[in-house]
Amino acid sequence: MSAIPSDFLQKTAKLSETVIAPFPASHKRYSVGSRPDLRVPYREISQTATQNDSGIVSNPPIPVYDTSGPYTDPDVEIDLLKGLSPLRQAWIEERGDTEQLDGPTSRFGQERLTDEKTENLRFSHIRPPRRAKAGANVTQMHYARQGIITPEMEYVAIRENNRLQEMRADPRYKALLRQHKGESFGASIPDEVTPEFVRDEIARGRAIIPANINHPEIEPMIIGRNFRTKINGNLGNSAVTSGIAEEVEKMVWGIRWGGDTIMDLSTGKHIHETREWILRNSPVPIGTVPLYQALEKVDGKAEDLTWEIYRDTLIEQAEQGVDYFTIHAGVRLAYVPMTAERVTGIVSRGGSIMAKWCLAHHEESFLYTHFNEICEIMKAYDVSFSLGDGLRPGCLADANDEAQFAELKTLGELTQIAWKHDVQVMIEGPGHVPLHMVKENMDKELEDCFEAPFYTLGPLVTDIAPAYDHITSGIGAANIGWYGTAMLCYVTPKEHLGLPNKDDVREGVITYKIAAHASDLAKGFPGAQVRDNALSKARFEFRWLDQYHLSLDPERAREYHDATLPKDAHQVA
Amino acid sequence: MSAIPSDFLQKTAKLSETVIAPFPASHKRYSVGSRPDLRVPYREISQTATQNDSGIVSNPPIPVYDTSGPYTDPDVEIDLLKGLSPLRQAWIEERGDTEQLDGPTSRFGQERLTDEKTENLRFSHIRPPRRAKAGANVTQMHYARQGIITPEMEYVAIRENNRLQEMRADPRYKALLRQHKGESFGASIPDEVTPEFVRDEIARGRAIIPANINHPEIEPMIIGRNFRTKINGNLGNSAVTSGIAEEVEKMVWGIRWGGDTIMDLSTGKHIHETREWILRNSPVPIGTVPLYQALEKVDGKAEDLTWEIYRDTLIEQAEQGVDYFTIHAGVRLAYVPMTAERVTGIVSRGGSIMAKWCLAHHEESFLYTHFNEICEIMKAYDVSFSLGDGLRPGCLADANDEAQFAELKTLGELTQIAWKHDVQVMIEGPGHVPLHMVKENMDKELEDCFEAPFYTLGPLVTDIAPAYDHITSGIGAANIGWYGTAMLCYVTPKEHLGLPNKDDVREGVITYKIAAHASDLAKGFPGAQVRDNALSKARFEFRWLDQYHLSLDPERAREYHDATLPKDAHQVA
Repeated sequence: MSAIPSDFLQKTAKLSETVIAPFPASHKRYSVGSRPDLRVPYREISQTATQNDSGIVSNPPIPVYDTSGPYTDPDVEIDLLKGLSPLRQAWIEERGDTEQLDGPTSRFGQERLTDEKTENLRFSHIRPPRRAKAGANVTQMHYARQGIITPEMEYVAIRENNRLQEMRADPRYKALLRQHKGESFGASIPDEVTPEFVRDEIARGRAIIPANINHPEIEPMIIGRNFRTKINGNLGNSAVTSGIAEEVEKMVWGIRWGGDTIMDLSTGKHIHETREWILRNSPVPIGTVPLYQALEKVDGKAEDLTWEIYRDTLIEQAEQGVDYFTIHAGVRLAYVPMTAERVTGIVSRGGSIMAKWCLAHHEESFLYTHFNEICEIMKAYDVSFSLGDGLRPGCLADANDEAQFAELKTLGELTQIAWKHDVQVMIEGPGHVPLHMVKENMDKELEDCFEAPFYTLGPLVTDIAPAYDHITSGIGAANIGWYGTAMLCYVTPKEHLGLPNKDDVREGVITYKIAAHASDLAKGFPGAQVRDNALSKARFEFRWLDQYHLSLDPERAREYHDATLPKDAHQVA
Repeated sequence: MSAIPSDFLQKTAKLSETVIAPFPASHKRYSVGSRPDLRVPYREISQTATQNDSGIVSNPPIPVYDTSGPYTDPDVEIDLLKGLSPLRQAWIEERGDTEQLDGPTSRFGQERLTDEKTENLRFSHIRPPRRAKAGANVTQMHYARQGIITPEMEYVAIRENNRLQEMRADPRYKALLRQHKGESFGASIPDEVTPEFVRDEIARGRAIIPANINHPEIEPMIIGRNFRTKINGNLGNSAVTSGIAEEVEKMVWGIRWGGDTIMDLSTGKHIHETREWILRNSPVPIGTVPLYQALEKVDGKAEDLTWEIYRDTLIEQAEQGVDYFTIHAGVRLAYVPMTAERVTGIVSRGGSIMAKWCLAHHEESFLYTHFNEICEIMKAYDVSFSLGDGLRPGCLADANDEAQFAELKTLGELTQIAWKHDVQVMIEGPGHVPLHMVKENMDKELEDCFEAPFYTLGPLVTDIAPAYDHITSGIGAANIGWYGTAMLCYVTPKEHLGLPNKDDVREGVITYKIAAHASDLAKGFPGAQVRDNALSKARFEFRWLDQYHLSLDPERAREYHDATLPKDAHQVA
């Protein structure tokens, strides 16, 4: 640890107060499952009482789904230098199908472990990686198909229910449980999420639990159409030392506001080291685009990419603990000419790298031709596929075109191959799509990709509002979430313009929490309306503090009210 | 003029630079109609050339619909003390069906004209009001039904087309005119808006041109399902002298970013004077809720309201030039008990005032019983009805309930009465509605109110995000606009929390421009995609400046880019 210069240490070891401050009037609670080490967190927001003519009537506390991890638990001591406690370690070991390796097996991982130039940036408690024993398959899908309910499955079942059964049994919640019947377009949302339902959905491929065996720190979560709509936040530095501290802080900030997973899209010379810091301190699944790092290894020359370099990168990242990989294996050589007449060509970075490679070599994409080998790697660590939409439209004009839908068909074909290996899969989607053409994307995905979870970026419903693309895309996201998309990838106000800072991350995450929650209400997810009802009642009764506390962003709600109105006696009622 | 204290004069006479600065790379242009005084403004955004392998190819200028009025025309000298030039004056006079009165005919208007206490706040060029000659009806609907195409109708036809015919005839625009076929849910959007089409839509009641004969300063605009989706911005001071200057500035600020109409919801002692300043300086139609002022006149006691006081207020405001009145005439005595079980009761201010009055007197609402007399006033000045939704839901739980839809039925009944008088009508809508229940609102409105234009607030699709309700409502607004709503009333980040400042107004207006434009694209309004296509092409070619200039908020787009990226050589290409 002494190799880390003290200024770097100081920066990295301590998060800002604002990032870890507990939420007002909130308590971190845990629902304990069938074993004592299965403790599912939620946040309980207490309410003040209602004062009316008939006296004082208390209002019950409201439980909310909590993505913020141990950072908001005052009983947990955070030490970024050590990383979070590996809560899944025992579950993974108990299964007896993995082995601890002596060290990284990727060439790059080995090199970086002893690299002198990056020694001062290195996380100091690197665990030797774990891998499936020879011939074993350690994916959640594999267990599910064998009828096994893992602790991870039970965990997400408890988490999805969010105390619904307890509230139903408690008369204080009766009025708050009032909810409109949703329109779910043929989804199969259960009235209560059971561990068996989770197992069945995973076995069918309709949901995934991204949970690499080398990322035991995560609090498991599930991505699927019949569960709560999730959101992903992207991070990405562009090198320099302070970048690491900054990215860890942004990760914690992103999950504080509600990010369910984080994608690390960093580029530059130290992405391997940055990733280790993020993984060891992240309670949410981490996704990456391994192609970005592979490209760094060939100095940015797409045509110099090889299967061997890419393969080594997959193993390197899998052994660090990345939970899902975006892999643009659907960009086939034959599809590239279909983009020639587009207004914005190929805008996906991964898509354009692979298109360039295919054209340079006049060959089919190595991601496509080596897909079975990729599956072999995925199942040895339980890394989930996020099959990338390399040909997604970059503007309204290009929406829903031949190239986009040709690739989608191929993603469906690859899904079936992955499922033969019992590897978990989700499918990435657009992009830029006018409002009335959004649903076609969902419908085609369900059909062509056999109900594998859909994971979309926006879509943006107009191109004319750079600096407000969290909003243009939030509109599309709420709609596609309603139609059945399982996870929404956030967009910040800086989209198309630059890299997001902390304010942008907060704005983007809150916008997407709104979209995801609007989707859940529209789909009719059980219990989704409780928080709305509680906040509305507080609003009607001028219980200002409760109104803030129940909102997605209590700090800003309070700040806006305080800024404009005279001190209100009701506020502290 | 000397009666105005000089400090007030300084504040009021000059708008901030930021409010009237011309947009970058933009020119104010006018399309001239069938007569020389019919000059329809638009903003033309110039583009830089594309540099590619085959050389330099120029990109044509893009015309955009312009709501900002003379404030962005460098050839017009603005003098707030005099007000804008009354461009419709000649059209109104030529019709020969109105007479100029000696002075205000309302008691309140007469009192305030000579009131000493407000002398220093008074606009100094008050025109004597104009009114229909005895027995005449001066509404645009009346003319339309007689087969007359007024200059106002021709004006809006040219404005709606936004140079589409010129672009179609010019080969430089061929690729930019590419557009997806929309889904308009049975609307009758024409391929080209003709003056005759406008006349026909107004005659049928499917569209309105809010244009009081006492507001000759407006640049006419149309509100209807078969035209571009419009947005309204609300202003509202709460007295004090500087409030007037501030509200005029906010009005100019609101239309700068795209407000199509402005509602003045001011309260307090000087609303009469504030309104005069706003009207004389507003190129967009102004709406009010006369009940708010009537209530001031009875010191806030709802039960003391009388038809006589309300009637005098209608005449007072009609003679000042208010273009549309929100009138909550659908809140009938029998409907009030239907709200008893609601989570948030009656949240509309107008609705709750009338409900209180009805209950206090055990009588039917005087707005309902005097509706024919109200129509007589409306048609003497051409004030349009905005039939208020006094029973709109204030939270998701109360959405689409019996009370809401009972009132909507009554609004339909009142629409038919107004149409017998040839008075123009639009219908106000909710509120707070989950995403999957939004469409029912539109469908019922079309059926119950016979396709009168729908004018909705949001709707907000979740209750849990105070401080972000521009976004929760922008999602609902984009959807309901797509389904057929003609005008969207904006919501700012301060909704439920406090009064909006200038930043909030900008954020709210831009969010609603996004929603309205997304609706137009989804409905398939001809030419709506040109700006998206041009911006996307600029983006793909790294023409950064063009990308900013074509965006809804060029300043912020540029600011965000400059803040985060190193100086880009492409930027000044």
